[in-house]
Amino acid sequence: MIKLLVVGTVAYDSIETPFGKADNVLGGSALHFTNAASFFTDVGLVATVGKDFKLSDIAFLKDRNVDLSGIKVDEGKTFRWEGKYGYDLNTAITLKTELNVIENFKPHVPDDFAEADFVFLANIDPVLQSHVIDQIKKPTAIVVLDTMNFWIENRFNELMDVMRRVDMIVVNEAELREISKEHSLVKGARKIMTYGPTSVVVKRGEYGVMMMSGEELFLCPAYPLEDVFDPTGAGDTFAGGFMGYIANMGDASIATLKQAIITGSVMASFNVEDFSINRIKGLNYPEIKGRYGAFRNCLQFGDIAFD
Amino acid sequence: MIKLLVVGTVAYDSIETPFGKADNVLGGSALHFTNAASFFTDVGLVATVGKDFKLSDIAFLKDRNVDLSGIKVDEGKTFRWEGKYGYDLNTAITLKTELNVIENFKPHVPDDFAEADFVFLANIDPVLQSHVIDQIKKPTAIVVLDTMNFWIENRFNELMDVMRRVDMIVVNEAELREISKEHSLVKGARKIMTYGPTSVVVKRGEYGVMMMSGEELFLCPAYPLEDVFDPTGAGDTFAGGFMGYIANMGDASIATLKQAIITGSVMASFNVEDFSINRIKGLNYPEIKGRYGAFRNCLQFGDIAFD
Repeated sequence: MIKLLVVGTVAYDSIETPFGKADNVLGGSALHFTNAASFFTDVGLVATVGKDFKLSDIAFLKDRNVDLSGIKVDEGKTFRWEGKYGYDLNTAITLKTELNVIENFKPHVPDDFAEADFVFLANIDPVLQSHVIDQIKKPTAIVVLDTMNFWIENRFNELMDVMRRVDMIVVNEAELREISKEHSLVKGARKIMTYGPTSVVVKRGEYGVMMMSGEELFLCPAYPLEDVFDPTGAGDTFAGGFMGYIANMGDASIATLKQAIITGSVMASFNVEDFSINRIKGLNYPEIKGRYGAFRNCLQFGDIAFD
Repeated sequence: MIKLLVVGTVAYDSIETPFGKADNVLGGSALHFTNAASFFTDVGLVATVGKDFKLSDIAFLKDRNVDLSGIKVDEGKTFRWEGKYGYDLNTAITLKTELNVIENFKPHVPDDFAEADFVFLANIDPVLQSHVIDQIKKPTAIVVLDTMNFWIENRFNELMDVMRRVDMIVVNEAELREISKEHSLVKGARKIMTYGPTSVVVKRGEYGVMMMSGEELFLCPAYPLEDVFDPTGAGDTFAGGFMGYIANMGDASIATLKQAIITGSVMASFNVEDFSINRIKGLNYPEIKGRYGAFRNCLQFGDIAFD
């Protein structure tokens, strides 16, 4: 039985950064998410790929208790994304998007996946995200939403319909501002909470993460890397670490959510050290725990003590 | 006897922000610094002003144990700065700078100030900063340096001479990159430590502060304000809270430095809530302690706990 369901994309990416180039490498929101989350919990992945996709390349995930039976192989080619980054590694420039099999993607959640306690709706058409929620069987399931500027601009009403049905959203700064029409992140997060979600997680790239959950605000800088090699998938890897940790703990208390934000940040910091899913693929638990501890040491301090 | 000496500018500012306009209001690096630091320790201020300066406007600082006897009144007009901000409140646009009496400023440190345990060299010509260090009598005094792009570009060698003689520098991101010629803040800070300082504090505006001290790295996001009214003096107010706290504790251990970074951030967060020195002028201790506690609550989290 899986604990965490993710629905999104599995893709082939071609990426150019100031540090190198990689062609037709594994990518996609659901794959980056799963790669990270599977260190912490049993994941079920729902996505579609084309006949050209080499399933053997992701078979290693089975050893980490990922159920790949929700991947549908369709006639046609796998979704492809081509992008590059300048020295400002915060912003990707999309060179080409080939939707291919994604164009007819209608996510089907297998029966045993539908009982998951935790659900992540990676960035796809909000109409499809609603369709996934329709298939969830546990009324207590914690559902987390991601999206992007394209849907905010072209499917706003449909996105708002999904928003009313989820527990949390995970977005970047620009998306938060575009949805809420507020410049201040605090005001923006508070506004989004009036739409339905009880927690809002804002990804700020090299500046870290802000979370508002109920009345609680949590701030986390990014892990201070000396070099960022390829930022592709950092946001989805963050979400995977975040939700994987929550599913592992089995609760969404504020204490758990804070630790989950740090875990997600740690996973994202590993992801950007190499192209594609490579760094996380080869990761181990001592490395995760070691970096969590080192990160915590950079962030903890005592109470004020002046006379 | 003062504990903390500051040498810098006392000025009249004219400021325009998207939220309002203020003409000929109190400003200057040393004044913002002193206004904040004086909540924590006894401060001696060395600066020069013109005959037009109303000393009665800053007499309130005497009640907070500030020694104003180091302010020299010279023939001529007080230093004036005119600037404005767009909605990106991180960057000031300088409209006019009138050096006036600053042009002939040659800081003289009164004998009893020269015994201070802590010294802050606010942003002035590095030649004058060296001249201040020459007058310091305690070999154990902890000396902290600020500067700006103008001096990095026009007095680089003189700035490097000062750098070799100080314990810490407090600079913003752009200044760190310009001095170190490194894009990565971690690499830049490490490089600067090879020049002399044992601690490097990097101010990142709305993204907080990074400190490297020996082998320790400390990260602090900015206090999450819903509105920023006027950012003028935020950096100097930060430095004032930071050094005031260190002087109050009487040590520069890593634990104290971390708390001092938070205290500085808290003071800066108050400063930007009103024009000029107004908000800090009217501040009280329960407000400072209250915001420190609220901020700490936004930043603390437990150790990793997955199976």
